[in-house]
Amino acid sequence: MSILLKNVHLLESPENERTDVLIRDGKIAVIGKGAADSAKETAGCETTDCSGRTLMPGLINCHTHAYMSLMRNYADDVPFATWLFDRIAPVEDSLSNEDAYYGNLLSIMEMLRTGTTAFADMQMFPRMAVKACADSGMRALITRGLVGESRDDEGAKRRLQEAFDEMEYGKEIGAPCDFGLGPHAIYTCGKDLLRYVGELAAEKDLRVHIHLAETQYEFDTCMKEHGKTPVEYLDSLGLLDREILLAHCVYLTDGDYELLKRPNVHVVTNPASNAKLANGFAPVKRMLEEGIQVALGTDSAASNNSLNMFGEMRLLTMAQKGVSKDSLALTAPETLDIAVKNGAAAIGRCDLGAAEEGKTADLILIDENAPSLRPLYNRKASLVYSASGYEVTDVMIGGKFVFRTGEYLTIDAEKVLFETERIAARYR
Amino acid sequence: MSILLKNVHLLESPENERTDVLIRDGKIAVIGKGAADSAKETAGCETTDCSGRTLMPGLINCHTHAYMSLMRNYADDVPFATWLFDRIAPVEDSLSNEDAYYGNLLSIMEMLRTGTTAFADMQMFPRMAVKACADSGMRALITRGLVGESRDDEGAKRRLQEAFDEMEYGKEIGAPCDFGLGPHAIYTCGKDLLRYVGELAAEKDLRVHIHLAETQYEFDTCMKEHGKTPVEYLDSLGLLDREILLAHCVYLTDGDYELLKRPNVHVVTNPASNAKLANGFAPVKRMLEEGIQVALGTDSAASNNSLNMFGEMRLLTMAQKGVSKDSLALTAPETLDIAVKNGAAAIGRCDLGAAEEGKTADLILIDENAPSLRPLYNRKASLVYSASGYEVTDVMIGGKFVFRTGEYLTIDAEKVLFETERIAARYR
Repeated sequence: MSILLKNVHLLESPENERTDVLIRDGKIAVIGKGAADSAKETAGCETTDCSGRTLMPGLINCHTHAYMSLMRNYADDVPFATWLFDRIAPVEDSLSNEDAYYGNLLSIMEMLRTGTTAFADMQMFPRMAVKACADSGMRALITRGLVGESRDDEGAKRRLQEAFDEMEYGKEIGAPCDFGLGPHAIYTCGKDLLRYVGELAAEKDLRVHIHLAETQYEFDTCMKEHGKTPVEYLDSLGLLDREILLAHCVYLTDGDYELLKRPNVHVVTNPASNAKLANGFAPVKRMLEEGIQVALGTDSAASNNSLNMFGEMRLLTMAQKGVSKDSLALTAPETLDIAVKNGAAAIGRCDLGAAEEGKTADLILIDENAPSLRPLYNRKASLVYSASGYEVTDVMIGGKFVFRTGEYLTIDAEKVLFETERIAARYR
Repeated sequence: MSILLKNVHLLESPENERTDVLIRDGKIAVIGKGAADSAKETAGCETTDCSGRTLMPGLINCHTHAYMSLMRNYADDVPFATWLFDRIAPVEDSLSNEDAYYGNLLSIMEMLRTGTTAFADMQMFPRMAVKACADSGMRALITRGLVGESRDDEGAKRRLQEAFDEMEYGKEIGAPCDFGLGPHAIYTCGKDLLRYVGELAAEKDLRVHIHLAETQYEFDTCMKEHGKTPVEYLDSLGLLDREILLAHCVYLTDGDYELLKRPNVHVVTNPASNAKLANGFAPVKRMLEEGIQVALGTDSAASNNSLNMFGEMRLLTMAQKGVSKDSLALTAPETLDIAVKNGAAAIGRCDLGAAEEGKTADLILIDENAPSLRPLYNRKASLVYSASGYEVTDVMIGGKFVFRTGEYLTIDAEKVLFETERIAARYR
């Protein structure tokens, strides 16, 4: 199947230049003059006029917990410990697989609506996340959250087994998912388990996804218990030699920056969650100056409370400019790169993150007639500083539309809203 | 004319409680059981079923320059002086009245779309702002920007005359506008002019709207030239005895808080503009603790670059929580009060800012089926932490719908987009 997108504006092209893009076999086959001719030679090619729309690669949300939209706005304006232990954890522990399935779909609905085409997920219900992705066509890097002291810990063994089972399940049902290993954090996983995860990741060529240096308390405790910063500690266990996503990295020392520079290390910053849970602002400007790769995540809807990557881009750049008192900190192009290109690198999918021939067609269309984006002097600035996310009209993943002119094509939205309200009623 | 809104959720009512609201003669006439009966007795009452929607007072944007959406995304990621003197000012100086009319309407379109029902505007083109409000039905407090050394300064006299002329014009054409005096700043207005503005404000019972303590440079220069902080200096000229809107107030000393506590003083915080222009974060948490009245503004689309008050609320609370490392800083209800109730007080319209019987019907409806707001555990949290602004479906000002189920009823949106693009083409 192929689709010809006519008269699109590309993000990089001049204001008045429109072009055509041919999508074939899930990839961007031709951009430019040749696209229409190639389309003629392609049987059953569908043509869409995209006048007045910008085409760009989808945003990549590199840290979330998709089932947790079930706890959106359930516990706000409370201290971190109350939030986690008294409010969120009891609900989380009482969720069924079916509940989690609808929670995952609700998150996917919000992400698609606001132009996200892939996410990196740390899950308690990985099978349900895989199923939700398969059913909706959403792309994800799924990691089952792991906790426990050592490789012999029964809980850890069970969760690791689940992680591997879901990889098989994902392949069976053809889910658009990649898989990794998700040790929760250095304070919930013992030394031996962390080392073992690193060994497994090397052996099976899997990415690792972990929370790191999120709170002052985590930093202080790590220094006290191990005489190392969280980053140094993780490095001492071999994990910074792996392809790894480090969510948060708010508390860093000068020495930590050196360790984070490796090409296999991806810091995922979550500005809303860090601000809202009162952990402060990660030193993203400095990380970029040091040459560290930074991607962007929303964290879950229970701590954000939104999965809208446009809002997250805006908060990221605003916070960095405000904290550093430097209006040139995180320019619009840099911020977009963090949300798109660096996201693709973080989830190990360098076939994504660019509207270029040969790349996989994970693409979104933006309505240039939205008053919020007018007049159009500078597309990149308008997307970072002015867009709300609701200017997204269409979302395509792997060459297939999943959201089109404001409608979900693969999700029964009414049912998801009904089911999630039914679940929420239990906790009100 | 009257309108019966059936089955609305009010912001303050429990999750399952729906009610009816009768709007009559521009006011909220009846809330609750009696509304439907009163409607029957009212000739020509229109009834709308609002199931699945929340009714709340419209947001009040207390500091902007509406014509400046013409410069949206025109000058980003540059230092403040480059932004203002090299990029914005030359465009501003070359705008015609007609240009400004369309710029004002573009801003009004964005504000209505995202639930703002009134704004406080410091204008270079006050007549065009008044006309745009009259034509669209938008409410505003208009102040003509004033600059000059003294009351005898020719430019100052001309601008003051304009200010008074536009008040007359507004009355003539029945614009839904109030008027005040807008001395630009302490660094663009001399002592005598500022004193004179204070005298005129007292004599004619007008509000004053000024930029204050926005930058470190302004603070340092004021200390050097006058031996006083900007707040102390303005007080020494009698202006803090007037009803006054102080936009920004980023740089404050301990002593300044005392001076800002007066009931006639309204601080207007503009978190996006302050962050983006690298002025930092205003100490809003402390201002609230000190009992200072704080309202919220977006500043102009040239420095924000959005007029979406939902985005602004979110940034405000996130930044305050992040800076103070206090997750209880600026709770959702406090943030909403700042954007609504305090805004009404700031613009001197205590008939606005609440969905209560007897209040003027400046109201908005919110789509509760938006995935971004689901599930609905806590309406106020969902509006502050999760909403993008595009969940707003309907906007009513003075009892008349001006935006309904996503359509502008009083603005030719296509023409405004066409005209503003035509103007922008000159500057590309």
